[in-house]
Amino acid sequence: MDTRTSPIRLRLARVREALARHGVSALLVPSSDPHLSEYLPGRWQGREWLSGFTGSMGTLVVTADEAALFADSRYWVQAEAELAGSGIALEKIPTGNATAHVDWLASHVRAGSTVAVDGAVLGLAAAQTLRAALDKAGVTLRTDLDLLADAWPDRPALPAAAVYEHRAPQAAVKRADKLAQLRAAMRERGATHHFVSTVDDIAWITNLRGADVDYNPVFLAHLLVAADAATLFVGAGKLTADVVAALAADGVAVDDYARAAAALAALPAGATLLVDPKRITLAFRDRVPEGVTVVEAINPSTLAKSRKTDAEAAFVRETMAIDGAAMCRFYARFEAALARGERLTELTVDEWLGAERAKQPGFVGLSFPTIAGFGANGAMPHYRATPASHAAIEGDSLLLIDSGGQYLGGTTDITRVWPVGTPSAAMRHDYTRVLKGTIALSRTRFPRGWPAPALDAVARAPLWAAGMDYGHGTGHGVGYFLNVHEGPQSISRAMPEPTTAMQPGMITSIEPGVYRPGRWGVRIENLVLNVPASLAAPEEFGEFLEFETLTLCPIDTRCIERALLDAAEVAWLDRYHATVRERLAPRVDGDALAWLDARTRPL
Amino acid sequence: MDTRTSPIRLRLARVREALARHGVSALLVPSSDPHLSEYLPGRWQGREWLSGFTGSMGTLVVTADEAALFADSRYWVQAEAELAGSGIALEKIPTGNATAHVDWLASHVRAGSTVAVDGAVLGLAAAQTLRAALDKAGVTLRTDLDLLADAWPDRPALPAAAVYEHRAPQAAVKRADKLAQLRAAMRERGATHHFVSTVDDIAWITNLRGADVDYNPVFLAHLLVAADAATLFVGAGKLTADVVAALAADGVAVDDYARAAAALAALPAGATLLVDPKRITLAFRDRVPEGVTVVEAINPSTLAKSRKTDAEAAFVRETMAIDGAAMCRFYARFEAALARGERLTELTVDEWLGAERAKQPGFVGLSFPTIAGFGANGAMPHYRATPASHAAIEGDSLLLIDSGGQYLGGTTDITRVWPVGTPSAAMRHDYTRVLKGTIALSRTRFPRGWPAPALDAVARAPLWAAGMDYGHGTGHGVGYFLNVHEGPQSISRAMPEPTTAMQPGMITSIEPGVYRPGRWGVRIENLVLNVPASLAAPEEFGEFLEFETLTLCPIDTRCIERALLDAAEVAWLDRYHATVRERLAPRVDGDALAWLDARTRPL
Repeated sequence: MDTRTSPIRLRLARVREALARHGVSALLVPSSDPHLSEYLPGRWQGREWLSGFTGSMGTLVVTADEAALFADSRYWVQAEAELAGSGIALEKIPTGNATAHVDWLASHVRAGSTVAVDGAVLGLAAAQTLRAALDKAGVTLRTDLDLLADAWPDRPALPAAAVYEHRAPQAAVKRADKLAQLRAAMRERGATHHFVSTVDDIAWITNLRGADVDYNPVFLAHLLVAADAATLFVGAGKLTADVVAALAADGVAVDDYARAAAALAALPAGATLLVDPKRITLAFRDRVPEGVTVVEAINPSTLAKSRKTDAEAAFVRETMAIDGAAMCRFYARFEAALARGERLTELTVDEWLGAERAKQPGFVGLSFPTIAGFGANGAMPHYRATPASHAAIEGDSLLLIDSGGQYLGGTTDITRVWPVGTPSAAMRHDYTRVLKGTIALSRTRFPRGWPAPALDAVARAPLWAAGMDYGHGTGHGVGYFLNVHEGPQSISRAMPEPTTAMQPGMITSIEPGVYRPGRWGVRIENLVLNVPASLAAPEEFGEFLEFETLTLCPIDTRCIERALLDAAEVAWLDRYHATVRERLAPRVDGDALAWLDARTRPL
Repeated sequence: MDTRTSPIRLRLARVREALARHGVSALLVPSSDPHLSEYLPGRWQGREWLSGFTGSMGTLVVTADEAALFADSRYWVQAEAELAGSGIALEKIPTGNATAHVDWLASHVRAGSTVAVDGAVLGLAAAQTLRAALDKAGVTLRTDLDLLADAWPDRPALPAAAVYEHRAPQAAVKRADKLAQLRAAMRERGATHHFVSTVDDIAWITNLRGADVDYNPVFLAHLLVAADAATLFVGAGKLTADVVAALAADGVAVDDYARAAAALAALPAGATLLVDPKRITLAFRDRVPEGVTVVEAINPSTLAKSRKTDAEAAFVRETMAIDGAAMCRFYARFEAALARGERLTELTVDEWLGAERAKQPGFVGLSFPTIAGFGANGAMPHYRATPASHAAIEGDSLLLIDSGGQYLGGTTDITRVWPVGTPSAAMRHDYTRVLKGTIALSRTRFPRGWPAPALDAVARAPLWAAGMDYGHGTGHGVGYFLNVHEGPQSISRAMPEPTTAMQPGMITSIEPGVYRPGRWGVRIENLVLNVPASLAAPEEFGEFLEFETLTLCPIDTRCIERALLDAAEVAWLDRYHATVRERLAPRVDGDALAWLDARTRPL
């Protein structure tokens, strides 16, 4: 292929024409949309469209003669492959460095020139940081231009999937109660109004779900809440008359998606508006009239939904057993087929595992694209097998499977690693070190309110002891039939949020790993629930929390280097397997039950 | 005593008169001086003078009818006692919360009014935070008033101790080389000038030492460094002609201490001045003329002096043996006297231990006031026995001794806990849990550049497992014949500095503890050196560091609850004791040698 006429180079050329036309020196294209979501509808996948890089996170910068994509270590292998021939340089950044592109801009763009970014997809907090940095470099920031609009004739339309109610019993807290709770938080902040753009917050507050983006059961909307009224801004025709009536009964009016900005602009003078600078875009903030006082704080719903109620936690436990049973059936079938010598590939994993989950009660969809990476592919934390590029599962190596489901009663996310053939001593060493990390953090108690990021080292220490480490965070929050990545807590040095204090009811992943590029990868992931610690004398030093492991699925013991585990680690694993067997055995039979029995034997 | 006429109430009344005279609603008195030192010369102990609280950290706020002292948990017991009857309320704040008094001010002072703080003792970064917070509350900040000046007739003069050279071989890097290194760092930042106020930075750069403040061998000075010249601003008569000549030979001129601000004001237009906003006061920053570009960054010397050279590390190892030998002689004498039934008190510890250290080669002074806390007194992390108030050492409890020395070849800081009589099972449990914490962090490896605060949880996890915790940080940096608390690294959730990456050569304390108010306290502290990790295959995941334990002194084994230690912990402790015996035995004899032998036996 003549790369001068590759689609990416043609698109870049068109965008550069738009830059020149507007007298702009550089264009910044974040992986972002008006809702600051992680998974973007096609309409806002401008960074992918313009660069060809399909990873979920990354920032593109385009100047008249340069282009650079900023991505962290999870994406380096993938980005190098996808950017080849595009003329776009890959800038490798450490995990959690969200401002490397700002430094790059400051040094690659002359003082006196202009950088453009679409304010409609730029977070307010990010905008403040960006503006301050460019100010120092004497560079002007324009946020009123959507330079992709001109250059992208076949840009996808907005998604139009139907919205539906998340009903009791799984929706364990009534919409009216959530609105009352939200208004109490608004009063605490002195706010008369509150504007929400984050789609998982809106789904949680309204007990509605949708299918506008892949894997997350959310719908595009904005929500404006006042002391005695609320308006949901959502695409025309997405709500049935029943849903509209149910909302009206709880005092929530419905208006068109496109009218949210106008509603903000029409706020009465003297109003006090609560917004979350990390969860509202600059464009919306800029529409707030002068006479309105703006209070910046984290969305009350972001904190509230992170703390699952007892009823929700009970549904999640049930969902974990349902999901675990599907895993057992898949693995039993898969291992038997491998033993018979059938030719299986990474795509088989995706297909068979998805089929088992789809049979389960309450299943709605996958919670993210299945990662089935065999051998060297397992070394790419965000790998995805495709019909065009995937590996056959044969020979001696490790198979890493990271997968999850959306159920009416909760969201799952689990990673396991399985031996194929005879894993080498080095593979078993890596596997065992990672397992030690998972166990170390799973067993930890900690003071209520301790910052989640400050627990990161507990999982890493057993890997560090052997000079090993991993480039991603140790854990992310998980929603309740909502986003598989949910804030605010995060067990990660990146510390995306200051308000990451560990509170009862939060669900978080624990997923240390180790990656040997070109060889293999290991990651062992469970979801855990923050529960009060079971202590003999708990009060003298304040409240303590511990983790209840929610995920129910055997952790392979054939890959373990037994001498590397101490007695407490063996005891933890044996107890875990006893629980897995007890909880899953009633739900499987035949080959799956035999497989469960074999894989949950004590060490 | 009639508290209405107590000295503190009279002083507060005089200060309130000054407030009224200047139309100021509140006065903020930080624990701070023009050098932002931890230990303050008497002249700048205004907070202590006005409140009666003698703790090393705490912030006082005085309004017309209220007064509040903000202090963290280390000081609560002490502050409650010292503030009794003063009319000053104690505001208990979490460790690391440096802005609680700002929130208090914002809610206790009316919009439109004025708050005063002496800009000469207010850090630039603290001033920026304070001004932003008060702005939001509609309160004006005045920094040009020293309201204590009027009210404090017998305010101490500036200290006038002589300055002397820290000479080779212990001063292992020449002053000229340090200046060259500093100028290289200035060039990297594009700076033509650099102003330093922090006295330990100045002592390090100039290889000079002094005795202007207790325990830290520093002298009051400011330093202005240009590309081809440097001026040390220091009190008249503190430098001998020899020192002045030696400085001149390295291109350092000497000027009077009081002329530093004028020199900043005289910087030429077009100059670029590097200052550290955490290490320069607002008053100095305000003197910089308009035409000078100010670059804010951490002092290059703060980073450089934290990384001890190989030659310095070798002297520290030698100093640790010297200090450890003194500890052995003290403990041998002390235990023997106790066994003979002599009446000993906490003051005896201070006296005898100080005397042993004073006999050692290279000894200059103590590195901080000895903390000898018996029984309930051990539960106060910053306790100090006084002739007026101290405990006899008798009965069954624990004796906590935290002490250290300043030597020409390094600074020491060690905490040990010793049984007196028969410690209870609960005491032994606490002791063993703390020891597990000390061992856990001492054994940890970690990636070079990992933030020091993110290691905190590793030491706490063994305590958390039993629902225990401590209110102070886990570790602080330590100087080289300099301040016993030295930045920038700190193993503490408080995270005082973003630039806390762990680098080879840094020396840090590891000192978990547990405190049972009214009963006993435990803390076990060693100093450790960051060294490259001894790994089989160190390169694939980048460089790793580990800790070399520097402190040499037995850790009492009689208080250990053996069943709580695992094999790896026992092995660590036995190895440590073998090293202590090997290194100290050649330096002691008689009773001290016998004591060393007994206390270093394997578990």
